[in-house]
Amino acid sequence: MAKKLFIPGPVDVSGDVAAKMSEPMIGHRGKAYAELHARTVENLRKLMYTKNKVFLGACSSSGWMEAAVINCVSKKALHVVNGAFSERWHKISKAWGKPVEAVSVQWGSAVKPEQIADKLKSGQYDTLFITHNETSTGAMTPLEGFGKLCADNNVILCVDAVSSMAGVKIEVDKLGIDVLVTGTQKCFGVAPGLAMTAVSDRALERSKSVQSRGLYFDYQDYLKYDAKNNTPSTPPIPQIKALDYQLDKILNKEGLENRFKRHRQMAEATRSWAKKKLGLLTEDWCGSDTVSCVKNSINADLEAVKAKLSDNGYIFANGYGDLKGKTFRIAHMGDRTMEELSAYLKALDEALGL
Amino acid sequence: MAKKLFIPGPVDVSGDVAAKMSEPMIGHRGKAYAELHARTVENLRKLMYTKNKVFLGACSSSGWMEAAVINCVSKKALHVVNGAFSERWHKISKAWGKPVEAVSVQWGSAVKPEQIADKLKSGQYDTLFITHNETSTGAMTPLEGFGKLCADNNVILCVDAVSSMAGVKIEVDKLGIDVLVTGTQKCFGVAPGLAMTAVSDRALERSKSVQSRGLYFDYQDYLKYDAKNNTPSTPPIPQIKALDYQLDKILNKEGLENRFKRHRQMAEATRSWAKKKLGLLTEDWCGSDTVSCVKNSINADLEAVKAKLSDNGYIFANGYGDLKGKTFRIAHMGDRTMEELSAYLKALDEALGL
Repeated sequence: MAKKLFIPGPVDVSGDVAAKMSEPMIGHRGKAYAELHARTVENLRKLMYTKNKVFLGACSSSGWMEAAVINCVSKKALHVVNGAFSERWHKISKAWGKPVEAVSVQWGSAVKPEQIADKLKSGQYDTLFITHNETSTGAMTPLEGFGKLCADNNVILCVDAVSSMAGVKIEVDKLGIDVLVTGTQKCFGVAPGLAMTAVSDRALERSKSVQSRGLYFDYQDYLKYDAKNNTPSTPPIPQIKALDYQLDKILNKEGLENRFKRHRQMAEATRSWAKKKLGLLTEDWCGSDTVSCVKNSINADLEAVKAKLSDNGYIFANGYGDLKGKTFRIAHMGDRTMEELSAYLKALDEALGL
Repeated sequence: MAKKLFIPGPVDVSGDVAAKMSEPMIGHRGKAYAELHARTVENLRKLMYTKNKVFLGACSSSGWMEAAVINCVSKKALHVVNGAFSERWHKISKAWGKPVEAVSVQWGSAVKPEQIADKLKSGQYDTLFITHNETSTGAMTPLEGFGKLCADNNVILCVDAVSSMAGVKIEVDKLGIDVLVTGTQKCFGVAPGLAMTAVSDRALERSKSVQSRGLYFDYQDYLKYDAKNNTPSTPPIPQIKALDYQLDKILNKEGLENRFKRHRQMAEATRSWAKKKLGLLTEDWCGSDTVSCVKNSINADLEAVKAKLSDNGYIFANGYGDLKGKTFRIAHMGDRTMEELSAYLKALDEALGL
């Protein structure tokens, strides 16, 4: 019996979605693939509320995070760091030897535009990196206001929405997001192995002037193949087929607003449970709709909790990195239902002795 | 009805192998994944005849080609260019601004160690790039001799075996290959979305001294996670499951020697057919065991041939790049059988009016 995954990705994949991956193989330079590619990109645009280019990458989401650094940073990058994944993005910029500065925010909190407005207006920076949904802390940054600030100061706005896109409404064009990065294995409810990025004309233009972009993550190379509804090298066809099928379900069966509402309701139920019993790491104003980070305020042995839950058919998520043992996480994303979540919270009560 | 793919990748995936991709999802930071990862790597080592580290990447093979450039080239790269894919590798080095030189060889031919011995002995170069099996021309480079030449001159030997590994015996350690790059969707008979690279201690050591390696393709970051039977970011779990299952079939059901023999026999049958009817682009001494490149010596309308074959349930491969229209290719790799190949050659006779 497969165990239910309550970890923040990869998530459980519904049987009908998973079945699409086993279909007979097709060539990626033929008509059938071009149609699949075009349809997938078009539906992703609807989901992301954008007219920007959307690239499908044979990579994990980290790949497109790296691409944002490679293609956009020339003068200096400003990274908002409020958890392990935003820290990793900062590390990527440093690893490429890019001029870079970090604005550190308390883990469990998020940044507000006014906190970095002066910096962005200084003319020192050409790229801003924000992690919309910090999977390590359950903090979701409200994105309003950053777009205008960036556009006004010739700064490219890059947003990691790896664990929020498809669970939370993110209106890319309205928010002025130049580069959005996401992947299949979280709120999309599709297997890992495919990541997607939406790139604005401004970011594509910037890319042209940035030196040493290599080839694998070069936006300009993707752009060439995008015109043919294709990718520069062989794409992960099974995941694209599953995503195509799942996007139809998301857009036309469940509906976007219903999907966002379901995620919000699961988040509210989880936060209400956590606050009553243990407390949340995350500040109230920036609680994530897709993953919650719960304080281990009773000093429970989380490895023992994990083992008990495993016996009950659940995969438990301990805290991430430095937060391991001190917090644990509950993912409520993808095709997860309120009923499944309620059952898990009961199982948690039992395992934690609450 | 699914059409049979006679293109050089992606290839048809056997039903039982494809079915593994739809299995319930597992987390990549849990024990089940670590076991899967360890077993897959161990079996890949057997297949590659190597004790080197083997990394599993969420990328196409092009990703690991890029990694070889990023991690190994510091002083100057020497690229052997004898077709479209070796040309692409050369392009990757240039795109990263690496000092680079190309040795051009006639398309359809290959390089011999003595042709580049003087260059390698000059002390100018620190990395050599060879495409073992040029998918665009059907030329397979005999690899004997390059390893010693490279080791003696402190040159890292990088070999693209994307379309030959698992169909042809390549004894990585005996041949002295420092970096070998391959992917699932060709001779392995597994879906695209996963690529593998075997990296020697010498190459890992070199990597440490090369500046600006970023993070996504940094061998040192992979090495850290390799110690835990894991990957730096989320791996393509469905393809790894399918590869694990297929490796057991390859090693324990068919057997390596039988698999290599089957590929060789299919290649001989194809070359014999081609020579009798149209001629081969590739020189005799370097004909590939996995893909043949046939001259369109009768000036057939290859797009019409493609359409006819499609009606008969086959996907035909035209020539690649500049060779389109002038040549076409027949892939005989993966789980393809001699019976299926014979039927295809008959269908080709008919479609070409031979």
